[in-house]
Amino acid sequence: MFTINTRIFLPLLYIVWSDDLLTADEFKILSTFIQNQDWLSAEEKEFLDSKLDLALPPTRSGLNNWRKEIAEIVAVNPKMLSLFDLQLKVTSSDSLELYREDFEVLEQKLGILGSEALLKFTQNDKNQTYNYETDSTFAVGKMTSILDGDVADAINEVKKVISTPEFAYETSTDVNVYREKVLEWCFILAEKNLGNRAYPKKYGGGENLPEYFAIMETLSYHDLSLVIKFGVQFGLWGMSIQSLGTEKHYRKYLDKIGKLEIPGCFAMTETGHGSNVKGLQTTATYNHAEKTFTINTPTPKDQKEYIGNAANHGQMATVFAKLLIDGTDYGVNAFIVPIRDENMKPLSNVEINDCGLKMGLNGVDNGTISFHNVVIPKENMLDRFATINEKGDFISPIPSDNRRFFTMLGTLVGGRIGIPRSALAAAKVGLAITIRYSDQRRQFGPEGGSEIPILNYRMHQRRLFPPLAQSYALHFALRYLTQRFIDKTPEKMQEIEALAAGLKAYTTWHATATLQECREACGGKGYLSENRIDRLKNDTEVYTTFEGDNTVLMQLVAKNRLAVFRRQVSEMDSMDKVSYVWNQTKVFFSEKNPFTTRDTSDSHLLDTEFHLKAFYYREHEITTSAAKRIKKLIDSGLDAYDAFNVAQHQMIDVAKAYLDRVVLEQFLIKIETLEDSSSKTMLVKLAQLFALHKMEENKAWYLENHYFETSKSKAIRKMVNQLCWDIRPDAVALVDAFAIPESCLAAPIAKKI
Amino acid sequence: MFTINTRIFLPLLYIVWSDDLLTADEFKILSTFIQNQDWLSAEEKEFLDSKLDLALPPTRSGLNNWRKEIAEIVAVNPKMLSLFDLQLKVTSSDSLELYREDFEVLEQKLGILGSEALLKFTQNDKNQTYNYETDSTFAVGKMTSILDGDVADAINEVKKVISTPEFAYETSTDVNVYREKVLEWCFILAEKNLGNRAYPKKYGGGENLPEYFAIMETLSYHDLSLVIKFGVQFGLWGMSIQSLGTEKHYRKYLDKIGKLEIPGCFAMTETGHGSNVKGLQTTATYNHAEKTFTINTPTPKDQKEYIGNAANHGQMATVFAKLLIDGTDYGVNAFIVPIRDENMKPLSNVEINDCGLKMGLNGVDNGTISFHNVVIPKENMLDRFATINEKGDFISPIPSDNRRFFTMLGTLVGGRIGIPRSALAAAKVGLAITIRYSDQRRQFGPEGGSEIPILNYRMHQRRLFPPLAQSYALHFALRYLTQRFIDKTPEKMQEIEALAAGLKAYTTWHATATLQECREACGGKGYLSENRIDRLKNDTEVYTTFEGDNTVLMQLVAKNRLAVFRRQVSEMDSMDKVSYVWNQTKVFFSEKNPFTTRDTSDSHLLDTEFHLKAFYYREHEITTSAAKRIKKLIDSGLDAYDAFNVAQHQMIDVAKAYLDRVVLEQFLIKIETLEDSSSKTMLVKLAQLFALHKMEENKAWYLENHYFETSKSKAIRKMVNQLCWDIRPDAVALVDAFAIPESCLAAPIAKKI
Repeated sequence: MFTINTRIFLPLLYIVWSDDLLTADEFKILSTFIQNQDWLSAEEKEFLDSKLDLALPPTRSGLNNWRKEIAEIVAVNPKMLSLFDLQLKVTSSDSLELYREDFEVLEQKLGILGSEALLKFTQNDKNQTYNYETDSTFAVGKMTSILDGDVADAINEVKKVISTPEFAYETSTDVNVYREKVLEWCFILAEKNLGNRAYPKKYGGGENLPEYFAIMETLSYHDLSLVIKFGVQFGLWGMSIQSLGTEKHYRKYLDKIGKLEIPGCFAMTETGHGSNVKGLQTTATYNHAEKTFTINTPTPKDQKEYIGNAANHGQMATVFAKLLIDGTDYGVNAFIVPIRDENMKPLSNVEINDCGLKMGLNGVDNGTISFHNVVIPKENMLDRFATINEKGDFISPIPSDNRRFFTMLGTLVGGRIGIPRSALAAAKVGLAITIRYSDQRRQFGPEGGSEIPILNYRMHQRRLFPPLAQSYALHFALRYLTQRFIDKTPEKMQEIEALAAGLKAYTTWHATATLQECREACGGKGYLSENRIDRLKNDTEVYTTFEGDNTVLMQLVAKNRLAVFRRQVSEMDSMDKVSYVWNQTKVFFSEKNPFTTRDTSDSHLLDTEFHLKAFYYREHEITTSAAKRIKKLIDSGLDAYDAFNVAQHQMIDVAKAYLDRVVLEQFLIKIETLEDSSSKTMLVKLAQLFALHKMEENKAWYLENHYFETSKSKAIRKMVNQLCWDIRPDAVALVDAFAIPESCLAAPIAKKI
Repeated sequence: MFTINTRIFLPLLYIVWSDDLLTADEFKILSTFIQNQDWLSAEEKEFLDSKLDLALPPTRSGLNNWRKEIAEIVAVNPKMLSLFDLQLKVTSSDSLELYREDFEVLEQKLGILGSEALLKFTQNDKNQTYNYETDSTFAVGKMTSILDGDVADAINEVKKVISTPEFAYETSTDVNVYREKVLEWCFILAEKNLGNRAYPKKYGGGENLPEYFAIMETLSYHDLSLVIKFGVQFGLWGMSIQSLGTEKHYRKYLDKIGKLEIPGCFAMTETGHGSNVKGLQTTATYNHAEKTFTINTPTPKDQKEYIGNAANHGQMATVFAKLLIDGTDYGVNAFIVPIRDENMKPLSNVEINDCGLKMGLNGVDNGTISFHNVVIPKENMLDRFATINEKGDFISPIPSDNRRFFTMLGTLVGGRIGIPRSALAAAKVGLAITIRYSDQRRQFGPEGGSEIPILNYRMHQRRLFPPLAQSYALHFALRYLTQRFIDKTPEKMQEIEALAAGLKAYTTWHATATLQECREACGGKGYLSENRIDRLKNDTEVYTTFEGDNTVLMQLVAKNRLAVFRRQVSEMDSMDKVSYVWNQTKVFFSEKNPFTTRDTSDSHLLDTEFHLKAFYYREHEITTSAAKRIKKLIDSGLDAYDAFNVAQHQMIDVAKAYLDRVVLEQFLIKIETLEDSSSKTMLVKLAQLFALHKMEENKAWYLENHYFETSKSKAIRKMVNQLCWDIRPDAVALVDAFAIPESCLAAPIAKKI
């Protein structure tokens, strides 16, 4: 039987027998401790030792009785702080208080944390983690209005359409069924004048480019094959005519394209040339006598590949080909080439193959096209930037083939706006499904308590909230990009092209990473197709590749930034160095004093001005350092191509730092304009999280550059955790504010109960 | 006409008209410069200005003539270093040499890099980037032997089978066709005695667990649905009987399971309880009179979910359920429950539904199972760890329900070895396809030169080679884990379980990340199903979830590490503090002197001893700091559950630091044992890349802890780049050494030409 002296061991005996982490070693430690206590009698020692015999464990019910007895004591003494407090209570006496320290040393040896051990005996769902619930500090409808802005009407128009029964999801795994369904959807959209929204009114369109982008974005909530098919037909095919052609082409084609009477393709990419489109090998040879062009695919590697609308539905294509006149190569130009007759049979000499099953976007009929000396009339040359006169001479206002080609590409930059907007919409759907599910899904919890919504776990918040904040930030950045594109002037085109290329890469990578987190955060449910994460992920997967491979685009952005930088430096050289202000350079250099590099006060860490300065500082320093490095490499005798190759990794950093800054800056500018204070407060919190999370991602760089002291770097990590925790109650409201139609959140796990 | 003085501008005129980055601003800068040169006559200035009129560009042929003229000069003067050198040559005179500096300032303003500009006029494929080609510094066959080790026979046995025509890939998108094909493959494997390899010889098996794992790993080269179906049948189903049952069960089932005469399921996970298996709700109620159990699913949330082999083929299942005797809950135990009759019809009261389409693994028939008071005989309880005696009492040598359950789970830890080995095999296939393709795919190149294999680009190397090095490292780490599991003793089980849980998470995340890089690195081709990356990625996607969610597992690993740490600290407390050696603590503390924190010499950076010390240092410090933090949080009055939640992020770091160290350590230990010097040299290079890349990933931590100075952190980044570059020629040989059957590299892009 237990005595007062032996009863003090009862909680420990229970722990060593029940814990799943303790090992035989611990039995030995406890046993040795017992032998060493002179206040225990020999009988007591023997009794306790018998309770520690590995060959003779207590019975299951014996163990449970111990637990019950202890738990009752815990229940009536809720204020106990340590295991030893409990042990004393179990003895119903204070006589052993003087051994407190000995027991604490023992417990440390056993690896038992004082108050953690108490949990084993309590019914506990009163902790902070448990009691953190969904709430909303702002009006969801107001936030939606802020997000939708001045294209709300077009957005609502699309939402209405995609919520109709005709747009019920296609679940067949038969690719042909899916492709026909997507085509059917496109016809409905054409009929509702949603496809031709950007075309001139004169040709049946709406002359409203902002709405066109909003339509594409909103369709992305529904089905991404539809978006791409839509984008190929009305964007790539139609807008290539609008951007590269002239009046005669508009008259002949635009209205019919907008009505989907002529399904068409955009045939640029070749098997041998993807991102390096300048290297295209398809030829268009001018025939003086007949005033025609012969379109030809010289070798199988030069076939057009991945061409949307080609495998099943396209009747014509804008084909990019090297123009040859009398054996002279005049660079890449664009031509309209019929590829199928009205019975959808490929024309003779046009060879079309199906790209087959893809990772995603299987509702789009991608194919390859080879031309075997296909003859087209002269008027089929899209001749806005170059033409052939009556004498058969090549005429262009842009003498350089290179520059002419890039000017042509520049007019097509809209694709690099539509794609990131679509990618972001997909990421929003993923976040909405995942955050709603995580708010309801309960798993684990304190011993004896009920389970906890997984959104209350800090790691789960870490996974989902920085992407949520970044999605908000990118929403406004992409709106800004769209506006810049709409307000474009020739002088600003280079900057806008770089911004579009950069944000395309930045946003599509964001979508890929976010949807990956969503997939994992939804566990097994995230793997079932019914919950849509798989399709969102697989469909957007190629967004990082098409419209220019992201890594290649980031190199281009960096080159552009270096050029801008060099220009600014040269301007600086011609001025008094002391007066040099590179944007806010002077201001942010002043940040690097010992006080600020160590400032870890909350008010400083949350100060958006500090964030923006830190972003500018990083951008400036990284750009300077890359420029210097490349110059040094070249000066040391390295071939320039090698030098840029050596610096590729750094170049990506240049582009990222630039884009981070633009995204934060535009987010803050937008927030400044808002009036509703609760939305504003919420968005400021998201901007803080976005900024600090990026700084945390780049903390090694900041430490290397002594912009932070160690203490600040650690304080930032803590603040990111704190912001995640603070945002938790609003998380569901924040995804509700995206106002994604419920029909598009068809995932069973996203249903609100 | 051009004069000597005006000819010096010829290269600049060509550049401003042809470059696609220069803008109207540059024309102004150039024009202003011209006006300011007093050595130009008024006529010359006027002439040059006429050449800069934006409204009157040169003709295309005019521009080309300039280029041709300049290119000829460049061709005969290969040694020119700067644009000004070229400009002088164009004038055929040295008379303007004294204006060199003025022109250099001008070129800087125009953003033209001297020698880079020369590239515009050269036919250049002689650079370093271009001339980097595939080679091999080691014997591929020898490397394969090192990798295969002592299970080479089993590996080759499997390779032979999966290379036969019966194993040709199934390309139907019809899930049922695919499922039947996978079942057919399983029958072939069973027939060849590959499924029962680990079962006792007495029951028809091979009694060879190492070979079983090697078989599963090698099958992963072929098809991952097959691996999972195989693993469900022979691993989860068969081994649950072997591990949790007793002689009577072995006799009755094992032989038949090994022959696939009884297809079965492992029914643990419930809709409401995934990783938190302790919370399972299915009940098994003991009926004293009939000596039977009634298996029941109380609510729809308690149905068994994601159960492999359930939707189509399973006839029986090991079902985990709470045992109830006379209303008392005896914790989770396992029972054999028949679910289908011999005609494959579900038994009455067993409700089976199909999980439907999944992101991947669609060749596996996952389903849900609900039991509506299904009665089974008493002998169907798997009674190795607990049983019910004749009187109807519950009997177990392990009194704690908790510990009994975890002991049961411990015997099933093999799944956490098979899964990471399968994941790694999939990552290897992805790397093999991608690296072979990248060696052949050419894209971009210096102006006028031919295109360059994309594997020569530094960013591409950065994407693929650290994962390649890590794959090698993990190969040996998983072999080590397998050996530890085979040599297991009860005292070591906790450590082995933590290691298995940790390496499962570490490796499956590695596979997910690696295959993501592979997908993107293969561009559009990586999106076509024919190239297999999509399936590898989508099939392995759920590996991070099943056999325990990775994030949850990492928390468990961290808790285990903290327990180990506390034990070590308490041991330390009882000794003389001065003699305290926590592994090699003293040694690595000595590393933190000013000399070593700044040491950036190649020999030091490449020193594997330095790497291992740095890894140990990080592990020790992170663990100490997490332990302190949690203690502090609890001491400050935070509930322990909350405290662990607050520290979750840090806990993941504890687990990662531990696993990084184990992986590096085991890699180095393995390398030490090797005799072939060229393989050894190669593997050392991979170990260096693995170690330095990890240190780079964690450089913020090292900087925060002053283990590195800034200079060292930067030197490490450079060294990672350099190692990638050095490994480039061997990259193809390194993936060839995996010796993946060509039939499994069926991707057209992976074909060697």
